[in-house]
Amino acid sequence: MTEPLRIALAGLGTVGAGVIRLIETNADLLTRRAGREIRITAVSARDRGKDRGVDLSPYAWEDDMTAMAARDDVDVVVELVGGSDGPALTLARRAVAQGKSFVTANKAMVAHHGLALAREAEAAGVAMKFEAAVAGGIPVIKGLREGAAANAIERVYGILNGTCNYILSTMEDTGADFADVLAEAQAMGYAEADPSFDIDGIDAGHKLSIMASIAFGTELDFANVGADGIRRILSADIAQADALGYVIRLLGMANVEPATDAADGDTVRLFQRVHPFLVPKDHPLAHVDGATNAVVAEGNFSGRLLFQGAGAGDGPTASAVVADIIDIARGEIGAPFSIPVSELNPTAPAQTGHRTGKAYLRFQVVDKPGVLAELAAAMRDAGVSIESLIQKGAGDGPVLVAMVTHEGEEACVDKAVELLSGSPSLVEAPLVMHILKQ
Amino acid sequence: MTEPLRIALAGLGTVGAGVIRLIETNADLLTRRAGREIRITAVSARDRGKDRGVDLSPYAWEDDMTAMAARDDVDVVVELVGGSDGPALTLARRAVAQGKSFVTANKAMVAHHGLALAREAEAAGVAMKFEAAVAGGIPVIKGLREGAAANAIERVYGILNGTCNYILSTMEDTGADFADVLAEAQAMGYAEADPSFDIDGIDAGHKLSIMASIAFGTELDFANVGADGIRRILSADIAQADALGYVIRLLGMANVEPATDAADGDTVRLFQRVHPFLVPKDHPLAHVDGATNAVVAEGNFSGRLLFQGAGAGDGPTASAVVADIIDIARGEIGAPFSIPVSELNPTAPAQTGHRTGKAYLRFQVVDKPGVLAELAAAMRDAGVSIESLIQKGAGDGPVLVAMVTHEGEEACVDKAVELLSGSPSLVEAPLVMHILKQ
Repeated sequence: MTEPLRIALAGLGTVGAGVIRLIETNADLLTRRAGREIRITAVSARDRGKDRGVDLSPYAWEDDMTAMAARDDVDVVVELVGGSDGPALTLARRAVAQGKSFVTANKAMVAHHGLALAREAEAAGVAMKFEAAVAGGIPVIKGLREGAAANAIERVYGILNGTCNYILSTMEDTGADFADVLAEAQAMGYAEADPSFDIDGIDAGHKLSIMASIAFGTELDFANVGADGIRRILSADIAQADALGYVIRLLGMANVEPATDAADGDTVRLFQRVHPFLVPKDHPLAHVDGATNAVVAEGNFSGRLLFQGAGAGDGPTASAVVADIIDIARGEIGAPFSIPVSELNPTAPAQTGHRTGKAYLRFQVVDKPGVLAELAAAMRDAGVSIESLIQKGAGDGPVLVAMVTHEGEEACVDKAVELLSGSPSLVEAPLVMHILKQ
Repeated sequence: MTEPLRIALAGLGTVGAGVIRLIETNADLLTRRAGREIRITAVSARDRGKDRGVDLSPYAWEDDMTAMAARDDVDVVVELVGGSDGPALTLARRAVAQGKSFVTANKAMVAHHGLALAREAEAAGVAMKFEAAVAGGIPVIKGLREGAAANAIERVYGILNGTCNYILSTMEDTGADFADVLAEAQAMGYAEADPSFDIDGIDAGHKLSIMASIAFGTELDFANVGADGIRRILSADIAQADALGYVIRLLGMANVEPATDAADGDTVRLFQRVHPFLVPKDHPLAHVDGATNAVVAEGNFSGRLLFQGAGAGDGPTASAVVADIIDIARGEIGAPFSIPVSELNPTAPAQTGHRTGKAYLRFQVVDKPGVLAELAAAMRDAGVSIESLIQKGAGDGPVLVAMVTHEGEEACVDKAVELLSGSPSLVEAPLVMHILKQ
């Protein structure tokens, strides 16, 4: 038999404990599939004494997790600590410098430092893998990097944040307001005490930027993800969308455009947006409810591919981490971003004004004569053509006006919003959501 | 740069021409992703003169496709001829014997001879890959073999035949009868002139047996797939299912059970069934319409994973074929069935009588007094408990009685059917469909 593949595990939160449980529970199966034993040799976490429901006594303990990179009895370092910088990044650098392969579930670190780390891993000839960083248990990195590798990818998009999807689909099912559903999700542990990473689209942006690099062969560019969250969505928006044949989902969406300026050389224009979209009810993403994640890749030969499953949780995340470990045990290393970092195209952010599509605009307006005329005039003056409009009279509060535009340029919608900016008729800034093109 | 990977292509039907088009269209991308050029060197088909919409002049022509296995300028033989035996099998054997890797989309050949071929490929140290043999463009072989590799798979099931799914979802949308929709599908080229491979579940059975081997680490056993098709489904069945909260889908379903007899040693009881199921409307497979395929794998850590996309067609199939070629170019070879053939568990077919679940039974009965009592008595005597029942009076023809049972053993339903066998009250044998458990 081949030698065991020896693992050091940094971080023993729910996912770390899940990885230990998985490796213990499925030990025989892993050996059969990997062709060699997967053996944890060393572990590290902040608090040695904490009860994690797993027996740590078989494994060497390191108080300083970064020391694991130097151990002779370790082939692969698995980082499950989190944080884009700090000890996680130090550990990653040291592991690779010591010629050890590196597996992580840390989307923030990959989004911020993935290219630099991948460059170091490629130079060292070791693996750097991060399946668990995107969409939890769903093998979407593998799906893009290998399964869809024969295709030019036209768009990649999906539901990348389970917390937001849980909140939106619960609002849909119950008619409850955002704040109430968020509070309930926090009480149940589905949302963090500080939920902004999730609900403002940052977490989805991390994942989107990683997927985009692999899908398009472009340099990872998290800084230029346009992220917008779900805080402003009202139960009334969900009801209006429903009446019009849509559901609302927070999607990450990316595609590339040719550079407009020949002087750009290899530079590719990369569009990356995290935004609540109106999704037609006959699109597969409209049926993705609760904390589930789903990713769509549209290839020029494959057509639409959909990958769906649990986007978080200890079991699914551990499943993705150990899939990476099995790949390494099988000798499948290869470039972390599918193409060597030196060959990825540099990017500039795509302009958005020329993008065409339908949009949903929702206004909260004061209840007085002439307001609808004012809205309609702004649309007309900006060149926005209205497909449907609903005005919903309220008792005391502001009046809600929701409209769906005909297909048109985003610049026109932006201009209409600008024209209305500062109008005393508006109680708050309009909410604009794009409608997912089939 | 590394040397090009040189491809011989046998079979130039729509898929073969699609592979040529893909390799030409995406040439630069493939070189970047594979790390080396993918170059077709030789092609073969029955009719050299036929216009296929692709220029064959850059490639050497072989009249005898099996001669391609011996060419010095070929590293990988791609077989797109079809047929479980005959020239396809000869070509596969010769390619492997000559130390060449082998890629195929031929599900019938893999289902019948996959283990023997894999054994030969493993002994020769070459790749044998067949992503395109299961679910067209969806990377489901990779998903099971690698993406879900960390998991004990509890069940694998899915919509594996696009023709059947097209027919069933069209019956659902239009209320038309099976024979009419089939005729229309044949006219449009969605169904073969002799449709029995598709509509009797043979094609889905091929795919299921391949997936089951990879998912469960068991010897491939197509001979013991219990296959039943969709010929007997009436539009009335679809309407009844709808009223009860279900849609009807032809699913392939597999799982393993521990061997009941200690004398069996490593033998695993393998359940494999292709059958029209009633699928609850809140299950993701209920929303898979038209010719789309979808596969669900339920892992003990990942939970439910869903892979969805186009199950056939030249573009999607070519996408899967070339993904396999890219894997080979990247040096990712490994055991075709994930585990070396010598280590796969032998199987015996699982018994089905002890399986529990709900079932849908539909009877066409003569319109006379006492028939319902006769049906109800048979259910009672067989120990089948009825959850709901609809009797639909017709004008002249037979009366339709449809019922859904409570959860119970399949043996009881079988017994009820047996008790009614030969009854003059029945116009035809009852139709039994199982209900998919969530």
